[in-house]
Amino acid sequence: MASNTWGFLSFFMVLVVTSAYPIKTKQYKPCKHLVLYFHDIIYNGMNKENATSAIVAAPQGANLTILASQFHFGNIAVFDDPVTLDNNLHSKPVGRAQGMYLYDTKNTYTAWLGFSFVFNSTDYYQGTINFIGADPLMNKTRDISIVGGTGDFFMHRGVATLMTDSFEGEVYFRLKVDIKFYECW
Amino acid sequence: MASNTWGFLSFFMVLVVTSAYPIKTKQYKPCKHLVLYFHDIIYNGMNKENATSAIVAAPQGANLTILASQFHFGNIAVFDDPVTLDNNLHSKPVGRAQGMYLYDTKNTYTAWLGFSFVFNSTDYYQGTINFIGADPLMNKTRDISIVGGTGDFFMHRGVATLMTDSFEGEVYFRLKVDIKFYECW
Amino acid sequence: MASNTWGFLSFFMVLVVTSAYPIKTKQYKPCKHLVLYFHDIIYNGMNKENATSAIVAAPQGANLTILASQFHFGNIAVFDDPVTLDNNLHSKPVGRAQGMYLYDTKNTYTAWLGFSFVFNSTDYYQGTINFIGADPLMNKTRDISIVGGTGDFFMHRGVATLMTDSFEGEVYFRLKVDIKFYECW
Repeated sequence: MASNTWGFLSFFMVLVVTSAYPIKTKQYKPCKHLVLYFHDIIYNGMNKENATSAIVAAPQGANLTILASQFHFGNIAVFDDPVTLDNNLHSKPVGRAQGMYLYDTKNTYTAWLGFSFVFNSTDYYQGTINFIGADPLMNKTRDISIVGGTGDFFMHRGVATLMTDSFEGEVYFRLKVDIKFYECW
Repeated sequence: MASNTWGFLSFFMVLVVTSAYPIKTKQYKPCKHLVLYFHDIIYNGMNKENATSAIVAAPQGANLTILASQFHFGNIAVFDDPVTLDNNLHSKPVGRAQGMYLYDTKNTYTAWLGFSFVFNSTDYYQGTINFIGADPLMNKTRDISIVGGTGDFFMHRGVATLMTDSFEGEVYFRLKVDIKFYECW
Repeated sequence: MASNTWGFLSFFMVLVVTSAYPIKTKQYKPCKHLVLYFHDIIYNGMNKENATSAIVAAPQGANLTILASQFHFGNIAVFDDPVTLDNNLHSKPVGRAQGMYLYDTKNTYTAWLGFSFVFNSTDYYQGTINFIGADPLMNKTRDISIVGGTGDFFMHRGVATLMTDSFEGEVYFRLKVDIKFYECW
């Protein structure tokens, strides 16, 4: 009986470890972590060669080469931005950030993002990371959701923290993206 | 041997409980549950002060202040709607619903939604909930996916049930949202 | 002591099986698998009756009945496409593909997709599957994320592989979709 009791207790002790620890790990420590930059140059009617994004929708009265008044409310932009490992626009891209953003507030700068990071590199990653979320631009950091991935990021989920690393007028901005995966498969 | 057999059987009995019950719980019982309302006032050319959304894209021949014919097929609207705890438009908002919807059927009213609930409240929640999904408006209830969250809703997933709680012509509508999280972290 | 040791070892042997195998299964073997087709007929100003999609946003200088130059960069299309079990446009649809796609590259054909499969059938499925992801059209196969589901696909996640099964000029294209769920609930 004594040996049996010991076996029974040790069973529960191990069970607690295996069921509680993985959850805690998932909550607080990323299983994969990347820091990347992407660079957006908005088409303004004069920079066709360099532009990486274009305004394609606007509210009544606005046009497609100048961001709308009222904090750009109602503009949708489509983009294909280079993704780099450092903050230099001219560094060799390791991937592309592709998708759209839209400005959705009339009294401050906020955007809503739906986009993917697309990697096709033999010396970096292959696959995609898919993001959506709200981006209140005036906050120093903003968290959006990583809702899925493919290839090297198969079924991954996580949270990405955006920081505006630099911007020049209403034509160029650079985002630093802190990508933390909490489900890695 | 007898005590050992007992230990072995009890091991499997407990294992069945720990592996089967969590799955059943996840399927049928939310780990967090919120009921909220949001209020959308579409810009019609005359309600600039009150409007919370604007048509920003339309099919050929349509304009940006009147929802398109053919069940609004092809319209995209961008919105920043107040989120309230009850169904009163004038209640103090606890957050904002920000993103877009688009009408995508020619012979009935259906929309496709991509948006976030954004909370920044010391006495309610802080963080975001990210939604996408199809919204067949003529159904009494419609389920969309909660694909991620941040802050208080870190990594959450779930299903949100939308109900049209009220509407006035083609300018105002109020949605009741039954938010059920099944992954809470 | 001998019997206890055996119980302890067998405990760990079973534990390894129950904790390691499910992860491997999740990674490599879908818990549900569907193959479907959807058919997109773009409105070109002359096919109002048959068209299932419409260009609703375009970059400066482009219009809404002809896909934009520069690889359609900047076009957003809204769609409500029939979903069929085989590759025949005229087969009885088992559901609808509803949402949007946008062209987001200036020097090749790539799109970004946000859409849902909507099923409401007594002899097939009831519920929705929600997709987002990047679609580099020139690749034979492209993987996007299944970020959630409702009804029969409650809380499902997975990966969908898209293949361009056929296309006719810039008006009709047919996609084959290999849907693999790795989280089925």
